[in-house]
Amino acid sequence: MTLPEFFKVVTPEQVFEALSGFGRLAVETVPIDDALGRVCGADIASPEDLPPLPRSTMDGYAVRAADTFGASDSIPAFLDVAGAIAMGQLSGIAIGRNQAAAIPTGGFLPRGADSVVMVEYTGPAGDGAIEVSRPVTTGENVLGKAEDVARGEVVIPAGKRLLPQDIGLLAGLGMTQVAVYRRPKVAVISTGDEIVPVTDAPPPGRIRDINSHSIAALVRTSGGEAEMFDIVPDDPDRLRTAIEKALASDIVVLSGGSSVGERDHMVNVVSSMPGTVIFAHGIAISPGKPTLIASIGGKPLFGLPGHPVSALVVAQVFLAPFIRYLEGEALKRGPAGMRVRAALTTSVHSAQGREEYIRVKIEDEQGQVSARPVFGKSGMLSTLVKADGFIVVPIHAEGIPAGEMVDVFLF
Amino acid sequence: MTLPEFFKVVTPEQVFEALSGFGRLAVETVPIDDALGRVCGADIASPEDLPPLPRSTMDGYAVRAADTFGASDSIPAFLDVAGAIAMGQLSGIAIGRNQAAAIPTGGFLPRGADSVVMVEYTGPAGDGAIEVSRPVTTGENVLGKAEDVARGEVVIPAGKRLLPQDIGLLAGLGMTQVAVYRRPKVAVISTGDEIVPVTDAPPPGRIRDINSHSIAALVRTSGGEAEMFDIVPDDPDRLRTAIEKALASDIVVLSGGSSVGERDHMVNVVSSMPGTVIFAHGIAISPGKPTLIASIGGKPLFGLPGHPVSALVVAQVFLAPFIRYLEGEALKRGPAGMRVRAALTTSVHSAQGREEYIRVKIEDEQGQVSARPVFGKSGMLSTLVKADGFIVVPIHAEGIPAGEMVDVFLF
Repeated sequence: MTLPEFFKVVTPEQVFEALSGFGRLAVETVPIDDALGRVCGADIASPEDLPPLPRSTMDGYAVRAADTFGASDSIPAFLDVAGAIAMGQLSGIAIGRNQAAAIPTGGFLPRGADSVVMVEYTGPAGDGAIEVSRPVTTGENVLGKAEDVARGEVVIPAGKRLLPQDIGLLAGLGMTQVAVYRRPKVAVISTGDEIVPVTDAPPPGRIRDINSHSIAALVRTSGGEAEMFDIVPDDPDRLRTAIEKALASDIVVLSGGSSVGERDHMVNVVSSMPGTVIFAHGIAISPGKPTLIASIGGKPLFGLPGHPVSALVVAQVFLAPFIRYLEGEALKRGPAGMRVRAALTTSVHSAQGREEYIRVKIEDEQGQVSARPVFGKSGMLSTLVKADGFIVVPIHAEGIPAGEMVDVFLF
Repeated sequence: MTLPEFFKVVTPEQVFEALSGFGRLAVETVPIDDALGRVCGADIASPEDLPPLPRSTMDGYAVRAADTFGASDSIPAFLDVAGAIAMGQLSGIAIGRNQAAAIPTGGFLPRGADSVVMVEYTGPAGDGAIEVSRPVTTGENVLGKAEDVARGEVVIPAGKRLLPQDIGLLAGLGMTQVAVYRRPKVAVISTGDEIVPVTDAPPPGRIRDINSHSIAALVRTSGGEAEMFDIVPDDPDRLRTAIEKALASDIVVLSGGSSVGERDHMVNVVSSMPGTVIFAHGIAISPGKPTLIASIGGKPLFGLPGHPVSALVVAQVFLAPFIRYLEGEALKRGPAGMRVRAALTTSVHSAQGREEYIRVKIEDEQGQVSARPVFGKSGMLSTLVKADGFIVVPIHAEGIPAGEMVDVFLF
């Protein structure tokens, strides 16, 4: 049971510190309709004012606010209707003292008007006039020039993952293209003599390849492009050849080697490659301790455990945030995914000196959200399928007592 | 200001009730690697046991638990090593009384063994023997046959949106294809004389098309396939032609008509089409009241307001959950998206008789999550871009006081 001399178990913090040393990917320009979910590559300053001129936010009459001063049901203000504003054009109408113009929601205000009276507070007063039963203040029911967005203002900061409203705002500002970070290409390679492709019936003693499929799916859900490789047997030359080919990608993800002999085999091949730096050969976590994190000539390599559960947990905790980081987001410590606060239903125990990830099911009873641990032997994939997310037991804690509020990182 | 006779303002509940009357889409079979994020179309029962035979979860020695009974550091149990189990094959080794076989993590147990002693609790005892310093119980460090998944057990229920671990489990069970609901095709059509394509510089008084882009993005993020149509001017014949073409999709989404005249125009065209049922011509919500919900010959049609903010809010609250429903999920009331509990920083007021959606920013200070309303005039797209999500003020509430815990529906 000898360990290679470079064997080093590091903390999750140390892994994130090492990962933060890799540079982000390049920025590319894409049409806005392809930019949903991509991360903005530079601060976007507005090229123009929005709206370019004052617009009405209501159906009603454009007026001068001063002319409605003191208006009420018993003493309405009487205004002459100078015309009607149509959608889609600037009107030649100008509003003078005690005049009004009919205006639809979204219509541009005529010259002279500074506010809009809602149609509900007006009535016909005969002879092309209306009566107004409520006063308006200057700017009321009007979206002023540049009130939404001013020219030169940063509307979307670099590092924001673009949402539908961001795409809409870009369209509104006439921007048909947007600079976003490139998506990382991630080579996903299962290794091990015992692994057969999912299309094959496994002979006795062998098992189907799970990790290629689950890790590739995790890569996709994190914003990366997965490239699935053929299974590599426990043969140093074939592993080296596969890694050399995988280095054309932005990230190399191996899985396999859950037993000590196989782990040595993988780390020996990786560490013999030119320009390799090993950051972690073992992480103080559970599950997932036998994980290798390295750089080969500046290219990040993850050597995940062979156990499908451990591999997927490590990928959730380290690979997914790292993909999002390379793609332009801040590097967030801990599992990727949305967090929900919940009360822990049952005490959980953990060994000190390792960070532990406990699978939980979320239960929501009239807004009382609780997290129920899904127990089961390590290596049971079904526990991961039954859970809604993880909680994290900190590295120096002995556990978390029942009733405590915890953050659940949702899948 | 006459309203058509079929004018009816309904509650959000009534909208969801109407939407639940539409049938789900058909189920299709896709390769598992294309199934991430799709919704499972039928309960999936396991075709086999996982694992098919007992496997070790640790590096160590396969033993008979009875032979380790009472073992300790001072009085270890001595066992003869009958051989070593290799990965990837079933061993011919059989373990007899006081025998052991070296076994790697993931190795299949040899006949006769019922448990595994971790290598840490063993040591060499010379002459092909080991000493064991701790007892194990039957089944310890072993994942039993069918312990993860039993043949015939439903592992993934119909209606579940598939996660990476689900894809992994399907692979582990040898299932290369999976039945999922078809993704809805959604026709997205902006209408209005004032709207110009984003590629054009808008002449004075006209504005760029925002809704095609933002609504299409929302459709995509909800799991639908958006088909963007050309802008349709306020012309009944052209609107009718566009709707007829759009009926080839699964959902027709129009936007436009924020002023009363335009709304009448849209509802007149829709209601004149054969087989039309109008469910809502106005919803008791803010923003988004001027929304049309209809069925044309059984095909759902959403007529969203023209205001980009109102259109996107209505799409979030009604269209997104409806897309997810057609795609196989349960129809969830309220905005789509993850919910987070937060303390409201500032009281918000709302008119009774309408459900109101308030944009908020999430602030997280050492786990104290708060929701800060993003105020701004209706129609300001920038408020939607600055917000992280919505809170909902119920229809019969006058508001929500500061400090109250609220659900934030994240974008």
